[in-house]
Amino acid sequence: MESYIESLARGAYIASTKLALMPTATKNLLLNEIADAIEARYSEVLEANQKDVDSAVNRALPPALTDRLTLNASRFREMVGGMRQVARLPDPVGRILKGYTVASQLSLMKKSVPFGVVGVIYEARPNVTVDIAALCLKSGNACILRGGSEALNTNRVLHGIMQEILKREGVDQGAITFVDSTDRNDVRELLTLDRYIDVIIPRGGEALHRLCQKESTIPVIVGGFGICHAFVDESADLKRAVDVIINSKVQKPAACNALDTLLLHRSIAEEFMGYLRPLCEEKGIVLNVHGEKLESLVRTLGYKASLITHGREEDFDTEWLSLKLNVAIVDSLDEVLLHLRVHRATHSDSILTNNLDNARRFAANVGSACVYVNAATRFTDGGQFGLGAEVAISTQKLHVRGPMGLEELTTYQWIGTGDYLCRA
Amino acid sequence: MESYIESLARGAYIASTKLALMPTATKNLLLNEIADAIEARYSEVLEANQKDVDSAVNRALPPALTDRLTLNASRFREMVGGMRQVARLPDPVGRILKGYTVASQLSLMKKSVPFGVVGVIYEARPNVTVDIAALCLKSGNACILRGGSEALNTNRVLHGIMQEILKREGVDQGAITFVDSTDRNDVRELLTLDRYIDVIIPRGGEALHRLCQKESTIPVIVGGFGICHAFVDESADLKRAVDVIINSKVQKPAACNALDTLLLHRSIAEEFMGYLRPLCEEKGIVLNVHGEKLESLVRTLGYKASLITHGREEDFDTEWLSLKLNVAIVDSLDEVLLHLRVHRATHSDSILTNNLDNARRFAANVGSACVYVNAATRFTDGGQFGLGAEVAISTQKLHVRGPMGLEELTTYQWIGTGDYLCRA
Repeated sequence: MESYIESLARGAYIASTKLALMPTATKNLLLNEIADAIEARYSEVLEANQKDVDSAVNRALPPALTDRLTLNASRFREMVGGMRQVARLPDPVGRILKGYTVASQLSLMKKSVPFGVVGVIYEARPNVTVDIAALCLKSGNACILRGGSEALNTNRVLHGIMQEILKREGVDQGAITFVDSTDRNDVRELLTLDRYIDVIIPRGGEALHRLCQKESTIPVIVGGFGICHAFVDESADLKRAVDVIINSKVQKPAACNALDTLLLHRSIAEEFMGYLRPLCEEKGIVLNVHGEKLESLVRTLGYKASLITHGREEDFDTEWLSLKLNVAIVDSLDEVLLHLRVHRATHSDSILTNNLDNARRFAANVGSACVYVNAATRFTDGGQFGLGAEVAISTQKLHVRGPMGLEELTTYQWIGTGDYLCRA
Repeated sequence: MESYIESLARGAYIASTKLALMPTATKNLLLNEIADAIEARYSEVLEANQKDVDSAVNRALPPALTDRLTLNASRFREMVGGMRQVARLPDPVGRILKGYTVASQLSLMKKSVPFGVVGVIYEARPNVTVDIAALCLKSGNACILRGGSEALNTNRVLHGIMQEILKREGVDQGAITFVDSTDRNDVRELLTLDRYIDVIIPRGGEALHRLCQKESTIPVIVGGFGICHAFVDESADLKRAVDVIINSKVQKPAACNALDTLLLHRSIAEEFMGYLRPLCEEKGIVLNVHGEKLESLVRTLGYKASLITHGREEDFDTEWLSLKLNVAIVDSLDEVLLHLRVHRATHSDSILTNNLDNARRFAANVGSACVYVNAATRFTDGGQFGLGAEVAISTQKLHVRGPMGLEELTTYQWIGTGDYLCRA
C-alpha cells in the first residue's frame, strides 16, 4: 500500500514531467493569476493566519516565532508582489550553457533543465509557501511543500488558492504539492523518497539542516546558517570601517548573514573601540568580549557594563541572530585566517582594509561561500546579488554556494547529435 | 581519542588548505615527477599487483574482478600516461565564471575554487588510485582514497611512491591520503566526517552507491550505473542504425554506458531484426526478447536459440554489463517516452531517426544525463566529451551530470568588493 507521503511524491513526479516542458508564457500567466487570486482573497488568508497566531499565543510559543508566523498587510503585499516579480524574471530553463563539436563529429550541447521535483521543508513563515511555489513553477520544477505546523491554517488556505488556479487552467495539480500533516515521521519518509524527489531544500535552523543531512537519501542543499566574521586590519579607514561593522550587525540581526564575530588588529583596537562605543549604545549592541586586554580596554573606554559580556571560546561557534557580537583582538592576518579555519567560516566573511596584499590574501585563503573586501556581510542575498529572487543561501559546496536563485533551481542535460555516429 | 579515519581526514583537511593555493606549475611538476617515479618502479608495482592477483585467484574471486585488478604492461603505461596527460590539461582553479557590479556598487566575481577534501571509495581497479590522485591534485583538492581490499598491496605501493615525491618536494603528505584498511566500518565512519570531507565520489557498483547515498552525511556524487536505452523509429536509416546499436552494445559491454534496452518501432521491427541477426551471431549478442510478436519474429528470422532468452518485465530494470540486450517492439514515440520514465532512464539514451520532430521530442522529454540523436550511448565519457579526463559519470542532478572532469572537481566562491560599502 502506498503511503500518504508516497502518493504525494509520486503525484509531484508525474506533474514534473509535464511542467518541465511548459512554455514560459504559460508559467508567467499562471504566476500572475495565482498572485491575483491570493490578493483577491486577502481577508480569508489573514483570517486563517489569525487562527495560527492565536494558537501560537495560546501555546506560548516564542515571540520571535510568532512574529515570523504573522502575516500583516505589508507582508501580504510583499508576498504577492514577489510572485509577480518572479513572473517578470527570465526563464532559467532551456539556456544553452555550452556547446561544441568534438573530433568524432559528435555535436554536444549542454542545456539547462529543471531538477524535476524539489522538496522544501520549512518552518514558521507562511510566505515561504508562496515564494517557493513561484520559484519552482518558474523553473519548471514540481514542488513538495512541507511547512511548519504553526502555520498550517495559513499554508492550507494559500495552497488551496494555488490549487484552484492550477485546476482552472488545466495544469496537473501535483505541480504544487502540499504536505497537509504535522507528523514529524512524514518528514523522515519524505527524505527517503529519492525515486521521486530530486533535491531537498531545508529552510530553517541548524537542527533542521542537520536532520536532512543525516537522514536524507536525496541530495540536500545545506545552508542558511553559519558564523559571519569581519576583520579590521591596521590599514583600514577606521571611521568608515565602523559603519560597515554596524551595518553588518544591526541592519537585520536575525538574518543568517548578520555579523557574529569582529576581529580587530591589535594596533587599531583602541581607536576603533573608541569610535564603536557611542554606536553600540545607540543600537543596543551587546559586545561579547574575548581576552583580558580587550576587557580592560572596554572598561577604560567607559562602555556600559550592561552592554558587555564575558566571551568564552565556544561563543566563537555561536551564530547570535541577535544584537550580540563577539569581539577579539588579533596580532596578524595569519591569526585571522587560522581563526576562520578553526571556527569553520562557511557563510560570509569580510575584511576592512586599505592594504591590497591583505585583501588579496584574505580573499584567497578564506574558504567561505562569500568573501568581501570593504563591504558588509549583509550583502549575501539573492536580491543584493541581482538574482531577482532567492530560494535559499547555500553554505555547502555542491551545485550552489551563497544565494540560490532561479538559475540554481535548474540542472543541465547533455544533448549529443551525430550522423549515425559510432564510437571508434 | 581521535580514530584512525578521523586523523586521516583531519590531515587531508589541513593539507587541502595549502593545496588550494598551489601554483599550477608546482602541481604540474608534482604530477610529472610522480609519473616518473611510478614508471621507474614498474617491477615493484607489478610484483605487488601479482600478490593481489594470486590472492584473488586463491580466493576464487570472479574472473571479471580479477581481470579488473590486474595491471599489465599496457595498463601500467596507460596509468602513467594518464597522469602526464592531467599535467598538460588546463588548471580548473581560479577561473572567473562570472562578474558584474550591482546597483549598490558592489563588484561581484564568481571564481572557481577547489572543493577542499574529496573522498573516493572504489573497488578493484588499482589504476583508480593514481587517476584520482592526479585529478584531485590538479584541481587543488586533497583526496582520501579508499580502494578495494583485493588491490591493497598494489594500492599501498602506488600510494607509497606518491608519498615519497610529496615528501621530497616539501608538500603536505595529507594531500594524497590513503585508507590502509579493509574494514568496512572505516568506510561507514568516513561517510560521516562532514566536518573534514566536502564530497564523496563512489566508484563502483550500484550497491556501493546506495550505501553512500544512505549513510553519508557528506554530499555524494551518485552515478556510474543506469539503464541505457536506444529507440529506432520508423524513419531511421536502418542499416546505419544497426551499426550504432551494435557499437553501443559491443564496443565495451562492461561499461556503464553500454546499451541495455533496444526499442523498435513496430513498422520497422522485422526489417531491422533481419539486418541485426548476422551481427548478433558474429558478436555473440544474446537478445532478451520481450513480447510474443517479437518472439515469433526471431524464430521466423532464424535466430539461433542459444542467442535468445525470454524477457521478463523486471529485466527492463537490469543493467547487463554483458553482451545481453533487451529488445522490445513499441507502437509509438509516446510509448518509448513512457517506457523510459517507468524504467527511470538517468544515464544515456539514444534515438535513431530521420524525423526532426521525433528527434526534438525525444531530446526534450527524456530526462537522462545524456541524450543522443543518431549517436551511440557509448559516447558518454570524459574523453569523448573532450574533457581530457574523467573522475566519474554522474547520474544525479546536483552539481554535475554525465562525465565529471577536472572543472567539475571545483566549486566556486563569490568575492564581493566595495568601498566600505553598507547595505541600504
